[in-house]
Amino acid sequence: MPTISLRGAAMPPSPIRKLVPFAEGAYSRGIKVYHLNIGQPDIETPPTVLDAVRHAGFKVLEYSHSAGMESYRKKLAEYYRRNDIEVNENQIIVTTGGSEAISFAVTACMDPGDEIIIPEPFYANYNGFAQSAGVRVVPIPSAIEDGFKLPPIEDFEKVITPATKAIMICNPNNPTGYLYSREELETLRSLCLKHNLFLFSDEAYREFCYDNQRHISVLSLEGLEQHAVMMDTISKRYSACGARIGAFVTKNAEVLNAAMRLAQARLSPSTYGQILGEAAVDLPADYFSKIHAEYTKRRDVLLERLNKIPGVFCPNPGGAFYAIAKLPVADSEDFCQWLLEHFSHNGATIMMAPAAGFYATKGKGKNEVRLAYVLNTDEINAAMDCLEVALKAYAPSA
Amino acid sequence: MPTISLRGAAMPPSPIRKLVPFAEGAYSRGIKVYHLNIGQPDIETPPTVLDAVRHAGFKVLEYSHSAGMESYRKKLAEYYRRNDIEVNENQIIVTTGGSEAISFAVTACMDPGDEIIIPEPFYANYNGFAQSAGVRVVPIPSAIEDGFKLPPIEDFEKVITPATKAIMICNPNNPTGYLYSREELETLRSLCLKHNLFLFSDEAYREFCYDNQRHISVLSLEGLEQHAVMMDTISKRYSACGARIGAFVTKNAEVLNAAMRLAQARLSPSTYGQILGEAAVDLPADYFSKIHAEYTKRRDVLLERLNKIPGVFCPNPGGAFYAIAKLPVADSEDFCQWLLEHFSHNGATIMMAPAAGFYATKGKGKNEVRLAYVLNTDEINAAMDCLEVALKAYAPSA
Repeated sequence: MPTISLRGAAMPPSPIRKLVPFAEGAYSRGIKVYHLNIGQPDIETPPTVLDAVRHAGFKVLEYSHSAGMESYRKKLAEYYRRNDIEVNENQIIVTTGGSEAISFAVTACMDPGDEIIIPEPFYANYNGFAQSAGVRVVPIPSAIEDGFKLPPIEDFEKVITPATKAIMICNPNNPTGYLYSREELETLRSLCLKHNLFLFSDEAYREFCYDNQRHISVLSLEGLEQHAVMMDTISKRYSACGARIGAFVTKNAEVLNAAMRLAQARLSPSTYGQILGEAAVDLPADYFSKIHAEYTKRRDVLLERLNKIPGVFCPNPGGAFYAIAKLPVADSEDFCQWLLEHFSHNGATIMMAPAAGFYATKGKGKNEVRLAYVLNTDEINAAMDCLEVALKAYAPSA
Repeated sequence: MPTISLRGAAMPPSPIRKLVPFAEGAYSRGIKVYHLNIGQPDIETPPTVLDAVRHAGFKVLEYSHSAGMESYRKKLAEYYRRNDIEVNENQIIVTTGGSEAISFAVTACMDPGDEIIIPEPFYANYNGFAQSAGVRVVPIPSAIEDGFKLPPIEDFEKVITPATKAIMICNPNNPTGYLYSREELETLRSLCLKHNLFLFSDEAYREFCYDNQRHISVLSLEGLEQHAVMMDTISKRYSACGARIGAFVTKNAEVLNAAMRLAQARLSPSTYGQILGEAAVDLPADYFSKIHAEYTKRRDVLLERLNKIPGVFCPNPGGAFYAIAKLPVADSEDFCQWLLEHFSHNGATIMMAPAAGFYATKGKGKNEVRLAYVLNTDEINAAMDCLEVALKAYAPSA
């Protein structure tokens, strides 16, 4: 029997899925599980964009242009310009979700053996894309005590080697919810210009910024036009994760050209998803204000409840719909598993993502969990009741 | 400015798109272009499967399972069993088109520096996936004079090295239309068992077999269960290229596990596409017989017309909807460009794909073109009128 590749064997498993069998065990015992573990929003996809797909009039479901339908790219450029990102339709490649945009960035810009610096904790799937591409992830720790702000620039300088090719951020951040300030982004700009590095920015949560803070895209940083690559998706923006539509956006023509060849090899992104995405650009301006108000309320409830529990600390996340909390437990994975296997309160329990899976450094984040506030406030309150009671009842397994 | 990766710079451009600007030039001069250059069928997507998408009742367009919706995988397994491929839903990973299935196979099974043997001419995008994955393609020539049958097994033996990890076929073949016989597949089985190699088989055109020949899947070859990986797509089967739904199918649990981790990293395939694919499995049995009759008619007209033109030779393709023809020209790329730039007959011209782009060996296929018979017989006849007149009028550029 032929053996799989070293790369195949080393592909990291999803840290979030490990607990799925235990959740299934809880369901089978009739226990309700509050899912704060994954970023699948419960917000309805706007009916008008679903209708756009329903009423699409084609007779042959053809391939689109490999860069995406021109009409959609023009609409997207309009959307970006409304968000102070000055790009045109030829600087956009429509991708299969944000995932493919990440994969294009890593493959078009980096060779096997190259290094990418990412502040940790970070979105665990970055490991998968790096592993597939033979690229080495170099983590820089950010700290929960500092609210996960950008690590000091000296920490970046210390790990830069001749193999360093790029820095990657997620802004607002998954899993921490941290929103980078203009000052932090300008610090990164200087660093990338000084060392001639690409700056990859995953901006999947652009619309989710709270406390009157504004999101700043890497594409709007002056002087960084040739270094900045932005990865985007409509998954969270319009609660349309299953559309699998994202975007790879850069002003660097050479990078665009290489990514375009990757795009041509895989032919085209989903036609249905593009029709949906094109309709979504025309949603009324108040669409986001409603969503925004809802998430702000959820975050406020979650934060207040968490920080009232003795021994729990959760910094205020400025964006996205995630928060990382420190719990008074030694091993959050054991605790999360115990919650699903042995605990219930009012017939329910809570599922959270152990945070260790978001750190590349072994041993880090062991007493932390990530919570996605993708449930309504009643459910968040009920979930926090569970957590509060559970922390009193929990006895770590030997 | 940071430089792109060596890999990014080396990504092969699509050999088919090179001529697109010349086609645009022809349109702008008011000339009709018969597109025999690409595999976009003109057959209507079955209205019932488009309706399945229209009537889908969800309110939130969620991620599906990373391996694909369980209900769809069960249906797909039913479809495969009808085609003598005994697999269950856990041996299937639903992919974003056949393209992603190819990428999963190469990445899960092969490491940078590994070699894959592919009979040439072959589907040009295999180069792109190999390049992204750092894998070296080793071509083995098949010959137009032999109708592009499997090259002698000694030719494979000659190029096998310790770095050889897999053999890849496309069956029925794009670009040649060749349908491999059971005997040929059994020869490949012996070779793969002897040298412990994976056998990757791209079976995108399974339904398109003519002259009462039957398609044989690598997954039905006894004894090859641990070596065989099948890549599939619904694009051609249901004329649903824009759905971007394919499948990665193998009985090798270790390969499945590695591919599943790649699948998890990119979250999920398109939900819309899966709804369409699931509905398509229930199409009435006579759906394919109609399509089949139509393509047989087209192929017969194309073949007859081609082989009547002096100096043209086109072997009879047993499957898919492609044929490769040898033309009495020294450089088919120059000829194809001339057809678009300088020629018209009855206000029309013909666009074909120069075959050199389907060969990895430099200089091969220079007097050949690939023709996709994706137009109706009236249009094929009109296109052949153009070709016939053009070959008399053509004077190669200096």
